[in-house]
Order: sequence, then C-alpha cells, then structure tokens
Amino acid sequence: MRERDLIAQLLAPLAMHKAARGLADDGAVWLPPLGRELVLTHDTLAAGVHYLPDDPPSDVAWKLLATNLSDLAAKGATPSGMLLSLGLSAAEDEAWLRGFVSGLARGLERWNVALFGGDTISGLAQAVLGLTAIGHVEPGMARARSGARAGDLLWVSGSIGDAGLGLAVAQGRLPHDKYLLNRFRRPEPRLGLGAALSPVVHAMMDVSDGVLIDAQRMAAASGLAVTVNLAALPLSDAAAAHTPDDAARLQRATAGDDYELLFAAPADADIAALAALHRLPLTCIGAFEAGAGLRVRASNGADCTPDRLGWEH
Amino acid sequence: MRERDLIAQLLAPLAMHKAARGLADDGAVWLPPLGRELVLTHDTLAAGVHYLPDDPPSDVAWKLLATNLSDLAAKGATPSGMLLSLGLSAAEDEAWLRGFVSGLARGLERWNVALFGGDTISGLAQAVLGLTAIGHVEPGMARARSGARAGDLLWVSGSIGDAGLGLAVAQGRLPHDKYLLNRFRRPEPRLGLGAALSPVVHAMMDVSDGVLIDAQRMAAASGLAVTVNLAALPLSDAAAAHTPDDAARLQRATAGDDYELLFAAPADADIAALAALHRLPLTCIGAFEAGAGLRVRASNGADCTPDRLGWEH
Repeated sequence: MRERDLIAQLLAPLAMHKAARGLADDGAVWLPPLGRELVLTHDTLAAGVHYLPDDPPSDVAWKLLATNLSDLAAKGATPSGMLLSLGLSAAEDEAWLRGFVSGLARGLERWNVALFGGDTISGLAQAVLGLTAIGHVEPGMARARSGARAGDLLWVSGSIGDAGLGLAVAQGRLPHDKYLLNRFRRPEPRLGLGAALSPVVHAMMDVSDGVLIDAQRMAAASGLAVTVNLAALPLSDAAAAHTPDDAARLQRATAGDDYELLFAAPADADIAALAALHRLPLTCIGAFEAGAGLRVRASNGADCTPDRLGWEH
Repeated sequence: MRERDLIAQLLAPLAMHKAARGLADDGAVWLPPLGRELVLTHDTLAAGVHYLPDDPPSDVAWKLLATNLSDLAAKGATPSGMLLSLGLSAAEDEAWLRGFVSGLARGLERWNVALFGGDTISGLAQAVLGLTAIGHVEPGMARARSGARAGDLLWVSGSIGDAGLGLAVAQGRLPHDKYLLNRFRRPEPRLGLGAALSPVVHAMMDVSDGVLIDAQRMAAASGLAVTVNLAALPLSDAAAAHTPDDAARLQRATAGDDYELLFAAPADADIAALAALHRLPLTCIGAFEAGAGLRVRASNGADCTPDRLGWEH
C-alpha cells in the first residue's frame, strides 16, 4: 500500500479534529485548552523488540496508544491528541495496516483522543511505530516521580505481574489464558484514576519496567529509601494461580509492562475512597523513609531484595 | 552506550527547559504561550533510507531538526520545543552518538528550541530517528496549503535544486562542492521569513519533495490550476554551473530536499520588501488560475510538463 493511499484511505478518516487539517498540511494547528499545562510524551514500539511480529496488528496499535496514555495518566493529565509515526517494512501489508488502523480507531474512541497528525515512511528493515501523546492538566497538578516524603506510603493500582505472564502465554511458555494475554496486549491506561490521584499524592509514575525497579526510581528521585512488602503485592486470580511463593512473587514484581499507577501518598490520605470510586483495587505495598535504596521484605519479614529489579535500558 | 547513560550524560545536559523535568519523568510538562495556537509536526529519518550511513552524525541531527522546523516555518510558527525519538542499531556507537548530540545542540541553540523529552530504544536493524516539533502562532495565522486564489502569484524562497546536487556530491557522482553538500546536509528552516509571510500570503508550504510536485499539491488543495515558468527558477551560482538548459532545470525542480518556502500571494503584495528585510531572494515562479493541474512552461514558452514531478511516497 502506497503511503499516500494509507494516509488518504485509512488514516484521514480518523483525523476528524480540525487541528489535523485532514492530514493534508505540513503540521497540525491546535488551540490548547486555555490556562492548562500540557503533558507531552513519546514512546516507540519496534517489531521483534517490543512486540512479536505475529501479534495481532490491532493489539499493537492499542498497546502503542495505551502505553503513551499511561504516561499521561501518571501525570494526572487528560489526553487531547496524538501524532503517529508509522515506519513500515515490507512485512506490513494492507491487511496488517487495516488491522492496525482498526485497533487505533478503537483506542482513540475509547479514550477520546484526536489524531492530530504524524508521518509515514517505508522501506525499513522492521516496523518502528512511534507516538507522541499530548494531554492537559491543571497548572501545578502534574506530579513528578520525585516528591515522595518520609512517612509516605507506597501504593499501586490494579494488579501486578499479569502482563509478564501474558507474554509467556503469547510465547507458548504457559497455557492459553485470555485474561493474561489481554493484560499483556491491551493494557488499560489509568486515566481517570491518575487525574483523581494528582491532587492527593506526593509522587506518581506508571509501572512499565517492573514495580520494584520503578519503586526504586521513585525513591531515588525523591532522595529516600523505600521498603516493598512482597506479601502485599496485588495479584489477579489468574496470576495468583501461578504464584505459590515469594520466589514467584519476585518474578511478578520484576516482569514489567503492567501500566499500573505507582504513587506515594501521605499516611492519612483516604485512598480507599478513590479505589471505590474508580472500581479498581489500590493496594499499599510499602513505605518511604529517610535513607536510600530499595528493600524488599519477604512474607516472613526477612530481607529478600533481588539483584535484578526489573527491565533496565 | 546504555540508554540510561545516553540520556543522563549526553541528552539531559541539553534539556535545560523546566518543561523537560531533567528527562527524568514520564513526560514533559509545559505551559504553552497564552492565547497562541500550537503547530505540531513529526518527521522521521531512517539510516539507509533518508540519509547515508556514513553521513556525519552531527549533520544527521541538524537535518532531522531542520526539516521539522521547516514545517513550522511553513505555518508561520515560532518553535518552542521538541521531543526526540532515538531508535538505535548496533551501528550507532558512542562516537556517533556524541556527534549526533553535538549537532543537535548546535541546532537547538541556533533556532532557540528546547529539548522537552522523547524516548530511546535500541536493538533495531537500522537507526530510525524521529522528532516532534512544537511551535506557536497567532490564532488564525497558520496558513494552509489550500487557500491560494485565482490570480495569485506563486513564489519560492532561496534557491532550488542545490540539495539534489548536494546528494550527488555526497554520493561521489559530482566533484566535491562544499556549498552544495551543505545545502543537502544542513538545510536552513526559513523561520523568520515564514512568520513574516503568514499575514501576507494566501497559502504556504515547504518544498520537500520537489518544487513542481509541491506546487501541484498546493494547486490541488486550493482547487486551482498553476503554471510554473522554468526560466524563472531561482538557482544558486553553484547550481547554475550544472544547469545549462531546461532539461537540467527540470532536474533541479524535481529533486526535492530544498526546504524552501513556497507560497501563493496576491499580485499586489509587496514581496520585494520582505525579501530585502530577510536578505533572502524571493522569486515569482508562476501563477494560479481557475482550473486544475500543473503546467510547466519552458524558456521558449512551450509546455514542457514532465511525467515525474518529484518524490512521491
């Protein structure tokens, strides 16, 4: 499929926001919401590196959008629009592109995001798919990874480790499990929750490389030490069936791709009320104190901090 | 070089704008200029596709930034910041990365652009370098490709065809010529000129795929016909030496990579005054009229419209 046909036939119908100028101009022209700060993020997925070449293309599009929106959620932002960079190889035929665009369309509708623009190139050795997401937030409300205070509790949304198990399902290392596979391929950015947490928490980020390494990063950025209680790790029923002991819990906590929110809240914050409102478990998994570094406490209270905490780049 | 070292050692020192949060957060947080429209654009360069693997890395960075800023210039926008997506293969060693970052730093300083954020990935089969540029413009002042009116004159800035000849120099097909090589590797976005032209012109775009095909696109977007006079094509002294006749002029006009501004202005607009102010030739190369399509008029007045008008994607 020629690039101009891809744009005219598949992408332009999604670009209904007037800022996109029908994808027929040199750039998007957009009036941002008055008096709001913008949150801007860019993430890329490459075939064979970040997704499997035979993953369904609609899921690839969904994940590309969802992982970027998860960064917006972590800053408490509401998504506005996005720019898509499609770098294509010979492997992405018209059927693949139609699948990709259908997944993208569902994500844009679900999260109310406009396609502002982007670019397409072809002739690459592998597909490289980039996305710039733009959201807005009340000034001063975008929490940083730094900002946690001694005495704050460490919380995480949803459940941890599902996506790592879902990858094993996708690779045939575990029996088929639709829930786990979906958690790997179709993560759900915690947008509403992130916006609600922003005024309450001291620090927030999304969990992409593993909850332990991301907790360590939050502690380091905040100049504090953090302890994570392994027994408190929130597991889905599907993950719990694969998690008989602390060794398995450490695997869940270092697997990454969770796209849950990790946040530091003062001990007296009413987090339970937010959990009820957003119908999502919010679990206290640790606490910050003066010092430095991450300590993982086993179910029996002993120190079981592993050498490898998650994905390092 | 590990990704985190690349970010901490080479990129973070460039990210001095507070919006970047030291490249240590999930996204950039930026308060846009009040009451301005934003112009957003994304362009990608891939090794072996858009640049030669042995091109100097500082020039690759320069061109990546310049081509995106050229899109902002075409909309009359003033650049604010940008997000960089570095997709790396094994070929980009530390020396390459240092060269790339030095070229990027020079461009950011020259055009007063902030590094807001982005991402880095590694393990690709070839380098894929993406950039999202963000600029601002007075509301309503971002001209479209459409908007030309019958009777408007077609103008172009600078000189045409230098970059195509510079590519031939880079490939060893022409003897070394520093000026032509620079015009290929280090284009200059016409930012000041674009902002000055915006209130005056009816339509504007940048010339990236060849002045003929881009003129045709402007005419098509505006629902008009356009005639280009080949004899009027502005040539640098270096290009003129390679351009003895209309056949050669057609090569210059279809080569692309010019990154000059192409615009439609009413016949009574004082374009000469803007040329003097910006110390850049602005040349009338044609005119719009009712109808459709592009017609190229040879020096002797005959029709010499070629089959291939420029780069098609």
